[in-house]
Amino acid sequence: MENGLLHPDRLFPADHATRALARDLFYAVQDLPIISPHGHTDPRWWGENPAFSDPAALFVTPDHYVTRMLISQGVSFESLGIGTDCETDPRKIWQTFAEHYHLFAGTPSRIWLDDAFSRLFNVNERLAPKTANDIYDAIAERLPHPDTRPRALFDRFGIEAIATTDSALDDLSWHIAARESDWNGRVVPTYRPDAIIDPDAQDFNANLDRLGEITGCDTTTWDGYLDAHRSRRLAFRALGATATDHGHPTPMTADLSIADARALFNRVRGGKMTNGDAELFRAQMLTEMARMSLEDGLVMQLHSGAFRGHSSQVYRDYGPDRGFDIPIPVSFPVALRPLLDAVGMDPRLTLILFTLDETTYARELAPLAGVWPCLRLGPPWWFHDSFEGMRRFREMAMETAGVFNTVGFNDDTRALCSIPARHDVARRVDSGWLAEMIVTHRLDETEAYDIAALLAHGLAKKAYKL
Amino acid sequence: MENGLLHPDRLFPADHATRALARDLFYAVQDLPIISPHGHTDPRWWGENPAFSDPAALFVTPDHYVTRMLISQGVSFESLGIGTDCETDPRKIWQTFAEHYHLFAGTPSRIWLDDAFSRLFNVNERLAPKTANDIYDAIAERLPHPDTRPRALFDRFGIEAIATTDSALDDLSWHIAARESDWNGRVVPTYRPDAIIDPDAQDFNANLDRLGEITGCDTTTWDGYLDAHRSRRLAFRALGATATDHGHPTPMTADLSIADARALFNRVRGGKMTNGDAELFRAQMLTEMARMSLEDGLVMQLHSGAFRGHSSQVYRDYGPDRGFDIPIPVSFPVALRPLLDAVGMDPRLTLILFTLDETTYARELAPLAGVWPCLRLGPPWWFHDSFEGMRRFREMAMETAGVFNTVGFNDDTRALCSIPARHDVARRVDSGWLAEMIVTHRLDETEAYDIAALLAHGLAKKAYKL
Amino acid sequence: MENGLLHPDRLFPADHATRALARDLFYAVQDLPIISPHGHTDPRWWGENPAFSDPAALFVTPDHYVTRMLISQGVSFESLGIGTDCETDPRKIWQTFAEHYHLFAGTPSRIWLDDAFSRLFNVNERLAPKTANDIYDAIAERLPHPDTRPRALFDRFGIEAIATTDSALDDLSWHIAARESDWNGRVVPTYRPDAIIDPDAQDFNANLDRLGEITGCDTTTWDGYLDAHRSRRLAFRALGATATDHGHPTPMTADLSIADARALFNRVRGGKMTNGDAELFRAQMLTEMARMSLEDGLVMQLHSGAFRGHSSQVYRDYGPDRGFDIPIPVSFPVALRPLLDAVGMDPRLTLILFTLDETTYARELAPLAGVWPCLRLGPPWWFHDSFEGMRRFREMAMETAGVFNTVGFNDDTRALCSIPARHDVARRVDSGWLAEMIVTHRLDETEAYDIAALLAHGLAKKAYKL
Repeated sequence: MENGLLHPDRLFPADHATRALARDLFYAVQDLPIISPHGHTDPRWWGENPAFSDPAALFVTPDHYVTRMLISQGVSFESLGIGTDCETDPRKIWQTFAEHYHLFAGTPSRIWLDDAFSRLFNVNERLAPKTANDIYDAIAERLPHPDTRPRALFDRFGIEAIATTDSALDDLSWHIAARESDWNGRVVPTYRPDAIIDPDAQDFNANLDRLGEITGCDTTTWDGYLDAHRSRRLAFRALGATATDHGHPTPMTADLSIADARALFNRVRGGKMTNGDAELFRAQMLTEMARMSLEDGLVMQLHSGAFRGHSSQVYRDYGPDRGFDIPIPVSFPVALRPLLDAVGMDPRLTLILFTLDETTYARELAPLAGVWPCLRLGPPWWFHDSFEGMRRFREMAMETAGVFNTVGFNDDTRALCSIPARHDVARRVDSGWLAEMIVTHRLDETEAYDIAALLAHGLAKKAYKL
Repeated sequence: MENGLLHPDRLFPADHATRALARDLFYAVQDLPIISPHGHTDPRWWGENPAFSDPAALFVTPDHYVTRMLISQGVSFESLGIGTDCETDPRKIWQTFAEHYHLFAGTPSRIWLDDAFSRLFNVNERLAPKTANDIYDAIAERLPHPDTRPRALFDRFGIEAIATTDSALDDLSWHIAARESDWNGRVVPTYRPDAIIDPDAQDFNANLDRLGEITGCDTTTWDGYLDAHRSRRLAFRALGATATDHGHPTPMTADLSIADARALFNRVRGGKMTNGDAELFRAQMLTEMARMSLEDGLVMQLHSGAFRGHSSQVYRDYGPDRGFDIPIPVSFPVALRPLLDAVGMDPRLTLILFTLDETTYARELAPLAGVWPCLRLGPPWWFHDSFEGMRRFREMAMETAGVFNTVGFNDDTRALCSIPARHDVARRVDSGWLAEMIVTHRLDETEAYDIAALLAHGLAKKAYKL
Repeated sequence: MENGLLHPDRLFPADHATRALARDLFYAVQDLPIISPHGHTDPRWWGENPAFSDPAALFVTPDHYVTRMLISQGVSFESLGIGTDCETDPRKIWQTFAEHYHLFAGTPSRIWLDDAFSRLFNVNERLAPKTANDIYDAIAERLPHPDTRPRALFDRFGIEAIATTDSALDDLSWHIAARESDWNGRVVPTYRPDAIIDPDAQDFNANLDRLGEITGCDTTTWDGYLDAHRSRRLAFRALGATATDHGHPTPMTADLSIADARALFNRVRGGKMTNGDAELFRAQMLTEMARMSLEDGLVMQLHSGAFRGHSSQVYRDYGPDRGFDIPIPVSFPVALRPLLDAVGMDPRLTLILFTLDETTYARELAPLAGVWPCLRLGPPWWFHDSFEGMRRFREMAMETAGVFNTVGFNDDTRALCSIPARHDVARRVDSGWLAEMIVTHRLDETEAYDIAALLAHGLAKKAYKL
């Protein structure tokens, strides 16, 4: 490739004049600071600033986008260093990865990986069996250097603020450590209470016991349980949290009477759930979380619609987050109505919606966000965090929702090195979209520049109060 | 903007050669008369020809596309002149509108509004806080003039025929007045019997009593009730109606035995409905309406899939049609089958289908319209009456349905001044689509011109018998 | 048209540079042999090699894409030579077809028909009322010639291998005749056991009796019934079959205990089905078929989601496959899970999924195929075997599934003359897609050429073991 791994015009529209506009829009936003309001970086990175151990541990083993594609073509988990009696030599794992790197042709993963290889490790050749060793060496040699440690990467990436996602039961010690260090990077936790809200979660009752110990609240009663949430939310806020996040199977909400809610809690807590109680409890808790947001100002995020652990065998032998999470159909209007009717017109609430079911973009999410004052649309999530996925989102949601009811970009990643690449892709795709809006005279050029900056930086900062 | 608000090449494809073809196709159809076979203009406008009172009452307060976007960003209904104790100064309402006009960037509303401001009121600057007063004055000063009254606008817009949408219980007095006036514009009513078909409608039983009074039929019996429909349909036909319209929550149809239908009617009429009876009654009535269409030739339209009044509070305090109507998933094949099996092969029936659920375009509606002789596809409806929405409809439905099983464009609006803009957008988007069909050699140039004229004029005229 | 019916650049992107790339990619693959691993050509053609009788019988009467469009615009089945007391003069049927040929503007049928008219019969004018007779004559005159018989067409089309679709009860005599002839074309059967798996099938019990006779197995017991399947699968394999095909209303699967499966079989076989038993039996049988594939290596195909015979009247008077089959919504993750959990990680299984519900491409099918080692995605099916349908598939599925989890193209046709046209369209659309991938720097040019060849030939050959 004459331009190495990264062509400067990548992801821009083909048409000559449109591409020129896209390029100029991109130049105007490419260096804006990164706001990363939702993601899964490891808080230990920020609290301890450790060096990464090796290229396979950095790029292969923990990345479920990578492992899922390899598994789909018959590579074993063991050969990727996952499971009992698995490969332990990172160079061999890397070699397996390189032998199958052609599988990623046309996928977002390849864009992110090539970008990281190129920007951070000066790699200029595509990963392949014959380049595998050289690239391994190029990466491995940089990893011990101070400038490849997490905090240095944070600074090099131009991150203005990053949020992690943390269990409600987490002691947030790494966040405390980061705050107490001499490093000034802004890292904040996000309140993710699934483990104490979802009656189907593993060890749910034990989690509630633990919640009681941590907070000193009586989590055997509905009222004490709600107080315990309030207490934990305050603890998160004290460490900079501006948001909560809820990973529910469906977006169902409920608004029960206090008596009914207490009775439901007692069934759930007492191990006497009947059919539908778990779903109803999760539904009720979304509305309770929204009510608490009115009090404490935390922005609410809802990520629903993933069937987790689609293979029982894989879940049992290799654990969660191995790529076996599959989207299912969802529908929002009926599901969200109880919550919205309860608190949706209150100007203190912000509820950011995410979906894995793109059929809801134009049919439901854009019409909902285009009228309810509390609602905002999160960016294309997970499988849709891609060139085509972002294009579809813009084309299907913007005319009805309007750009001001969106929240910019989330990288949503546990792969640290992919953060700049993901924001780069989003800024390129949005620049291309805006260029086409100009060329078709749906936007003026000046307002397109304003919107480009909002999409890259301003909307996320405002929506997440960062 | 060097070309003012309206660029002559707006909405055409970016590619140079394709744009040139699109422009030529558009020139060939831009001045064809407007057929507006489905919409919500106020019959009083045509019967009385009143002047519009002020810019806010013309462009802001009644337009639910406008109010919904403003509400979504925290503007209050009261500040828009809606509700008790609301703002009553139209200039202040206009100022609020102008301060938030940037929210409409990239939305169809801005295209329609800019077009109306520019064409009708010679406005050449974008509405903004600093231009608000001048634009208000420019509009306000024209409103009393005779050429800005409804009938003059009808003529200026080049409307060949327009249909309103009227309750089955309406006395159609404004239609009579229009006919008896010296004005020759063709305005026809459309039979919309939801209030006497939907058992969940407000005052349903009182509506049926009233229906009995109007028609002299015994609406306490199934047979008398059906006769009353026949009578009202004839009255509508006598005033030029060529169509009926049905706004049902779902497209479910039924074909009960007469005995079962009578029993169902008795339960519904007698206030003894059981679960599912309301839905079943609406379903049965669609088939009855289709049967009556065989007799009287009225074309049938079905608009299903809107969840109306999504906010109880807004509905209670500010009424219907305030932007809180949200699409829900629908599916047609099973739902329509009873009606189709009963009368779908009869050459006398035309049933035009609309959807807010675009997932049905390629999966269901195109395959259905591409085989059932009675079925035609309505244009993209409501939130999908937009550049992207129209493109998706063409791309998803045309290959299987064929253009001849569609019915051209509906403006479907209660915003009179937006009518030419909406037809302009549709003609531009279709010209762009046809240009791409030519460039990719999927259509010959000559047939593309023929199809452009059909989409702009001929198909609507034929399908609606106008 | 200056270039006759077929423009050499048809279906390529409009942008000049992208089109040039597309053209070169297409040149590289246009003459690759055709692998046709799934379709509905008549085995008699291959066994007996008869001449086709007349143009109407070749192009009109049996083609449900053609008849459905004509029916949709009021043409009668009788005038197309279908039904009792129908038109029997093929020239008159042809004239009716020609008079309505404009209806196919912009449809895939026209591309296929024009291609066949042009390539096989040297027709250079569009079919229309005034050209109808000449084109009829041009075709009719070639039909008796040896080079227009099926085996000659097979050779002229450059077919490397073709699979038919055959009832499990078929004696495969035409396949035997083809094998025993002096002709060397590779034609293989496909095991399609719907008639002995679907309890809702006509004569289901009689079919199982017949299955018992053919195989000598006791099909009154679950174990004997399964053995009978094994026996028939072996018979198919002996004649070259590499695949099975399953046409189920839904993709539901089940994995019952042996006791429950036996009891279910007994209810189904004994005419004592209760509600849901038919669906459950089909579901269980998909898992049984997958288990047998582990034993005998047959690749499994699942075509689900068609509502067959949507018009009762048409089905009764004119039979199946008349165009009245309509897609319905489907969802795969929950439905497939029992089968996948049972055998989905086994490297011996290949299960190729097809859908008529495009909403599943990005939401479900790409995520599923992008992780389960057994799963592959079939090409766009039926109504989606079209320019726009193929583009949507590439745009919605490739980023997550990856091209290597797809299986190239299926022509899936019973219209022999359309086979080269269909593969031509697929190769053109894929060349255009790959050209855009290059221009936007999502693929290197060299890998795009490799992928073009895989999509046109290699992936089908490998996935179907042909």
